[in-house]
Amino acid sequence: MKIITFTTDFGLQDWFVGTMKGVILGLNPASVVVDITHEIGRGDIGAGAFALAAACRYFPTGTIHVAVVDPGVGSDRRAIVIQTGQYFFVGPDNGVLSLALRQERVVAVRALKNEQYFHLPISVNFHGRDVFAPVAAHLSRGVALSEFGPAVEDYVKLDWPQVQTSAAGIQGQAVYIDRFGNVITNIENELIAGQQMESLIISAGKTRLAVGSCYQAVAPGKPVGLLGSHGCLEIAVNGGSAARDLGLSIGDQIAILK
Amino acid sequence: MKIITFTTDFGLQDWFVGTMKGVILGLNPASVVVDITHEIGRGDIGAGAFALAAACRYFPTGTIHVAVVDPGVGSDRRAIVIQTGQYFFVGPDNGVLSLALRQERVVAVRALKNEQYFHLPISVNFHGRDVFAPVAAHLSRGVALSEFGPAVEDYVKLDWPQVQTSAAGIQGQAVYIDRFGNVITNIENELIAGQQMESLIISAGKTRLAVGSCYQAVAPGKPVGLLGSHGCLEIAVNGGSAARDLGLSIGDQIAILK
Amino acid sequence: MKIITFTTDFGLQDWFVGTMKGVILGLNPASVVVDITHEIGRGDIGAGAFALAAACRYFPTGTIHVAVVDPGVGSDRRAIVIQTGQYFFVGPDNGVLSLALRQERVVAVRALKNEQYFHLPISVNFHGRDVFAPVAAHLSRGVALSEFGPAVEDYVKLDWPQVQTSAAGIQGQAVYIDRFGNVITNIENELIAGQQMESLIISAGKTRLAVGSCYQAVAPGKPVGLLGSHGCLEIAVNGGSAARDLGLSIGDQIAILK
Repeated sequence: MKIITFTTDFGLQDWFVGTMKGVILGLNPASVVVDITHEIGRGDIGAGAFALAAACRYFPTGTIHVAVVDPGVGSDRRAIVIQTGQYFFVGPDNGVLSLALRQERVVAVRALKNEQYFHLPISVNFHGRDVFAPVAAHLSRGVALSEFGPAVEDYVKLDWPQVQTSAAGIQGQAVYIDRFGNVITNIENELIAGQQMESLIISAGKTRLAVGSCYQAVAPGKPVGLLGSHGCLEIAVNGGSAARDLGLSIGDQIAILK
Repeated sequence: MKIITFTTDFGLQDWFVGTMKGVILGLNPASVVVDITHEIGRGDIGAGAFALAAACRYFPTGTIHVAVVDPGVGSDRRAIVIQTGQYFFVGPDNGVLSLALRQERVVAVRALKNEQYFHLPISVNFHGRDVFAPVAAHLSRGVALSEFGPAVEDYVKLDWPQVQTSAAGIQGQAVYIDRFGNVITNIENELIAGQQMESLIISAGKTRLAVGSCYQAVAPGKPVGLLGSHGCLEIAVNGGSAARDLGLSIGDQIAILK
Repeated sequence: MKIITFTTDFGLQDWFVGTMKGVILGLNPASVVVDITHEIGRGDIGAGAFALAAACRYFPTGTIHVAVVDPGVGSDRRAIVIQTGQYFFVGPDNGVLSLALRQERVVAVRALKNEQYFHLPISVNFHGRDVFAPVAAHLSRGVALSEFGPAVEDYVKLDWPQVQTSAAGIQGQAVYIDRFGNVITNIENELIAGQQMESLIISAGKTRLAVGSCYQAVAPGKPVGLLGSHGCLEIAVNGGSAARDLGLSIGDQIAILK
């Protein structure tokens, strides 16, 4: 058994996702395909990269992670496969794999060039079906990385905002907003986990709030900071949407005041 | 093979569902995960309980049903596993399991306390990943119920509205509205199945309608009562939405007049 | 292992899809169920037929394709199973299977009449669970087609608009709009693939556009024609929605001018 995951912006309305699974099952009937999500905003490479990075390390060693948020499909953007200490990553070389790779030890990077492992003829606008799905299926059958194409030295990396620490406190920003409107920041839990929780005040836009132990640590409709499951500070509103209720967007500054 | 089902309000936009599957496959590669739904309204424990109850008995004996609609995650609300004559049920002890249990013979109830079967460290806001998924996976590998924590006597039960029968007829109410706007009532099909169908008049809000044999038993846009697949009377509109077109909401009275 | 696919308008909000999978796994634990899509517009038989036709041939030989877009459920519309050279197709006889069958060699057609292969009692409004899922599961276990019911000669076929070719060019129409707003036409890629791409001008509503090699062959917001992955000419807008931005709907004329 080999697990293949998918993170895409293809949506569930059309036949795109099912078709990729058909291609994979035709090449490796023993593979198990797991959807991370197909509801990434159209062409939102950053959100796709974030979702993949948040989920990938919860899968068993050997899992093949495919991410296809690919507005440049059919152009000369490169397609790549990357082997790390634990996993394989397959997708367009536009940064969608790069946040996951920050946590990994990269062992090898190859460009996808060998059409022997594609579904031919290759369409101009559905490389999920014609390139990435069949490459993942062949990988799951044990095809060596070197078979897929020439080694490449680098790959596109998305910028990741750095946290600033000073005497005044910790300065970070909102990096993802989930379907509940929870605002995930880039301030890692470890930066604040050792401190007196009750003394931490968060500044998010015009709102100041405290760190709590759960959503219901505050009254309904009130904001609370949480040491979030993703590994970073989250801003939530009990029963509400922090993004909407506090007027927060990705990139907005979130600070922990001392 | 062991089947694990999920009923949650996590949605499909983010990485939550895929991540739970990764945790499960890491612990038991032979398990088969089936999504009942992840689109329960946020925190709508009643809708989650209804969906689970509607689906669970169509799965093979031995299936492990996990339901996570859990606004109290991270608070002191209890987490439980319940063994019945046919199934296992895992989730927060907030009532989300309770409508399914009305149909079952409860054999044992345990609190989830043994961190040996959790994914550590446990986050404050994603017990689906850190508690419920790994407990289900360990269950699927044959870990005994008693391993998970101490026996508990009771569990939270949602109120279920009782049907009133009188000389005037049968008085029930709307208990669920599906994506088509079909209004499911608590009036069991058996209460009316033996009667002359043509003579049954349903009162739903200001509308009176008859029981029919299918959606198309009435003209497009017209309302019809059906002996619904869920086991209870449903109010539908052929090609329309009964909830919207007839102005019906959950809790509204639906009566069968004699 | 046997693959069973589903194409429906059931949506993912309720328990319908999960329940069908429970029925199938109870009858054949070795089956693998793949969702093509459950988000076909309610009762949109044409869209369901199109999605199935677009996806089905990417699955391995022997796959059982089930399509349930079935506004006439419970009426006297027929239910059928069709064996082709490569696949099985199961669904209501309302045309939802017919576009897929245009590509296939039909070997046998049977009406679904033998209640031995149904989930009893059969509800009036959920034949996906009570008829189509169990029939597919029994098929996957090797039950002979003739077991399900009497042979039937014909089945309902949706009209498929023919392309008109003349000295003035090629006259087709929009036949599907995907979630991105890409407009798929009935003009097969082969009709234009041999020609000088640069010289082809497409007329779509009031807009004239050229055929390009990828979405990014034109500036953001600009329209482009693509030899689409579905096998037919597509009209897209780089980063936008061709349907919305160009005001195109299904049935609108799309012409290639010479």
